[in-house]
Amino acid sequence: MTIKISEVFHGLNTQQLTALINILNKADAHAKETGADQGELLDARITEDMHPLSWQIQTSLELLVRGGARLVGLEPGSVSLEEREFSKLVPRVKEIQAQLTKMDSNVLDQIGDKIFEIPAGPDTIISLSGNDYVLKFLLPNFYFHLSTAYDILRMRGVPLSKRDFLGPITT
Amino acid sequence: MTIKISEVFHGLNTQQLTALINILNKADAHAKETGADQGELLDARITEDMHPLSWQIQTSLELLVRGGARLVGLEPGSVSLEEREFSKLVPRVKEIQAQLTKMDSNVLDQIGDKIFEIPAGPDTIISLSGNDYVLKFLLPNFYFHLSTAYDILRMRGVPLSKRDFLGPITT
Repeated sequence: MTIKISEVFHGLNTQQLTALINILNKADAHAKETGADQGELLDARITEDMHPLSWQIQTSLELLVRGGARLVGLEPGSVSLEEREFSKLVPRVKEIQAQLTKMDSNVLDQIGDKIFEIPAGPDTIISLSGNDYVLKFLLPNFYFHLSTAYDILRMRGVPLSKRDFLGPITT
Repeated sequence: MTIKISEVFHGLNTQQLTALINILNKADAHAKETGADQGELLDARITEDMHPLSWQIQTSLELLVRGGARLVGLEPGSVSLEEREFSKLVPRVKEIQAQLTKMDSNVLDQIGDKIFEIPAGPDTIISLSGNDYVLKFLLPNFYFHLSTAYDILRMRGVPLSKRDFLGPITT
């Protein structure tokens, strides 16, 4: 038995973006309880030369939106998250979840062998099969930015546990 | 076209553990250059109530070793990393890589439908198919601990880039 690409892709949407919504709600509740400045929290970084929380969240979403579009042959659009409050980010993530749900599973499952040219940094293009694009590029990148967002929130005292990161495993 | 579980599993080994070895070598070089105490670096955490770097590394390896054993029907053993120097951790990771390479792809590819009982925290057992175990449990957990290890090293000034995290995408 094998795994369908659509199962991997839509699984990230239903599991990890649901986890992200829960995490954003907890960050909102924590900021309200402690009186923390939400904008300042969204600007927090692991270290000076890494990107802030807002960027980590935006990039994890963009990877799915752009990656999904690329896989099914649509023009990859960017994701702009200008919201400076967690409670306003939540409906944006839900909107993106709804948009991703529409990605056609039948098309996703036919791109395993197709070759994609992926921009990977300045002046670098890498050629990957659809399978490799999902497994070797999309997954590690997506989880990296989501984990870093979680780590920043933990660093700033938001009470989260690994269960929050994992999201709904059994649904 | 679909993805084989063995492709996912062995891909983590060849891509992400190779990335980890490179990251440990860079941490070693940085500590030697700056005179940083390697033991103290291995004890560093994102925040007081999160696990230290040494634990994040150990857990990411243990997830593959125990997860792989569970999938192919062997008794899951634990991974103990007592080494307090990066240059001594590197051969341990290589040893684990060699061990994981031996996991039988044919067996791995036959467990998609099999139900696994996974301990997930105190008094919690979750039942997952082999596919779901890999996609919904092993992957997010593994990437979480590896990303957090990377974040701790960045937080402590080790010069790393996202390329280091991603490892050899095209091989």
